[in-house]
Amino acid sequence: MIHPTASGDERRSVRIREVGPRDGFQNEAETVPTADKIALINALGHAGLTRIELASFVRPDLIPQLADGVEVLRGVDLPAGTERMVLVPNGRGLDNALRQRELFTGQALFDAVTLFVSASETHNKKNINRTIEQTMAEVAVMGGRIVAEGLRFCAVVSTAFGCPYEGAVPMNHVLDLAERFVDAGAVEVGFGDTTGMANPAYSGRFFAAALDRLPGVEVTAHFHNTRGQGLANAYAALEAGCTSFESSFGELGGCPVPAGATGNIATEDLVSMLHEMGVETGVDLPALIDAARAAQSILGRPLTSHSIVAGPVVWAGR
Amino acid sequence: MIHPTASGDERRSVRIREVGPRDGFQNEAETVPTADKIALINALGHAGLTRIELASFVRPDLIPQLADGVEVLRGVDLPAGTERMVLVPNGRGLDNALRQRELFTGQALFDAVTLFVSASETHNKKNINRTIEQTMAEVAVMGGRIVAEGLRFCAVVSTAFGCPYEGAVPMNHVLDLAERFVDAGAVEVGFGDTTGMANPAYSGRFFAAALDRLPGVEVTAHFHNTRGQGLANAYAALEAGCTSFESSFGELGGCPVPAGATGNIATEDLVSMLHEMGVETGVDLPALIDAARAAQSILGRPLTSHSIVAGPVVWAGR
Repeated sequence: MIHPTASGDERRSVRIREVGPRDGFQNEAETVPTADKIALINALGHAGLTRIELASFVRPDLIPQLADGVEVLRGVDLPAGTERMVLVPNGRGLDNALRQRELFTGQALFDAVTLFVSASETHNKKNINRTIEQTMAEVAVMGGRIVAEGLRFCAVVSTAFGCPYEGAVPMNHVLDLAERFVDAGAVEVGFGDTTGMANPAYSGRFFAAALDRLPGVEVTAHFHNTRGQGLANAYAALEAGCTSFESSFGELGGCPVPAGATGNIATEDLVSMLHEMGVETGVDLPALIDAARAAQSILGRPLTSHSIVAGPVVWAGR
Repeated sequence: MIHPTASGDERRSVRIREVGPRDGFQNEAETVPTADKIALINALGHAGLTRIELASFVRPDLIPQLADGVEVLRGVDLPAGTERMVLVPNGRGLDNALRQRELFTGQALFDAVTLFVSASETHNKKNINRTIEQTMAEVAVMGGRIVAEGLRFCAVVSTAFGCPYEGAVPMNHVLDLAERFVDAGAVEVGFGDTTGMANPAYSGRFFAAALDRLPGVEVTAHFHNTRGQGLANAYAALEAGCTSFESSFGELGGCPVPAGATGNIATEDLVSMLHEMGVETGVDLPALIDAARAAQSILGRPLTSHSIVAGPVVWAGR
């Protein structure tokens, strides 16, 4: 429900890209059973999440938690129009993704492909064992293939707000990488606060600059709640004009640096904040909270999102 | 450490009022031993918190967790200049507070007295069994006594952003109550989001209006992290010009409505956000985190603040 005093000019809407099924399940110590993944994803879709990152075409020996990606893509039953997104780390992953798509051509397994690079050389090397230039050279080729297939090409620049190894990451360097993605055909660029180093003041400046530098591109904000500032960063990005956000139901996933830290901002907490401000998301918040609570049962531990415990705000007398 | 890219115009400073020793310890199921309270409060003071609510003069049969208030006030060893604050619910509590102050006249037990009212009639009745008008009539008398004693008179208006029983609380009604406190001699008015119903858009509008209506008064923001929005609300208040905040180390305390929900925003998470933006607090963040971690050991359970786990942001290469 919207805060009773929300003013008319705040009645905006934003797009939310749910990354829990990929980023969240990937970070679970024990692989989530495929049937449970499918049930949770279906619940997310029916709660009104229209953009869901469902799988990643990575080496199953490196990330066994996502080895069942094709089964998940084939098994889910999502409302028409849901954007089914997959993450691809390199050309081999893209080969595999497109081959699977040909094999199951009647099903159109996915609609969008996300490619990524880290803005920090050290982080990129540690994450995917390549230099930034090697990654971007491959992106130029892969981007053309994605576009030629009629798929939506999305990009993510990670460690965009700071790197635990290198420290500060210059804003212009991050935005240069974003432009190179756009030159390669990307219609969306997300910026990831991979290890939770952003603050709201910088977030506001960053997204104002990004929206200025990337006209016509969907600019997406991805924050972590490492030090409790995740929603403050999201609010600052929103105020700077950002209307696209990534989050993870249940506050699942993320890059737990430092060890034990919480991950991505929780979709249900983000939606709660936005709805209370009168910003529309299209999400049925109670249904989303139900899905996050179901994830707690499946994973066998309490998750850290706040709305799981508190529920939506209830305004008496309305 | 400050975010490497914090811009010069953000180098502001804010005042923080630590309420954990009163609001936090009051909400513990098991009374915290007096010696542990004193040790934790001393640690907070030596971590640079210059305003600490130490005790409450309430009926010990109603709130046994704070029955040792005078012992705590007498026992703490805080840096010179620390503002020692006490909460008083009514005239009888004020009688008792001033009597204790006379008894131990060599020690000057406290420097500031906080009076409060709920902006919601129903909540005020449930909380202190009086109508708002009964409370405000007594405030007019108590305020004069506090000022006459040379003590700082602080006020708090709770349920300022919404009430679980009544729903929306009109902004002008809240600010009218604030003005009545100022008329009674208050030099500070805090506004409490007692059950975590604020959102950042409303928070920003509210504090802009409050600062406009209360010139020369210290306007203090008190948020809860019930749905993870606490720091977003604080950031919005800061952007609206608010420079005074209440918080609780370890995310202790608050009014856990709904049951199980987290309470006040954590002082260490607030300080982390502010420092990263280049906003000064005077607090030694690692020392504060140490105090919050010590509270975990004493209370025998993990606390919910994020910085306890994640620690301060570390900027490599600086």
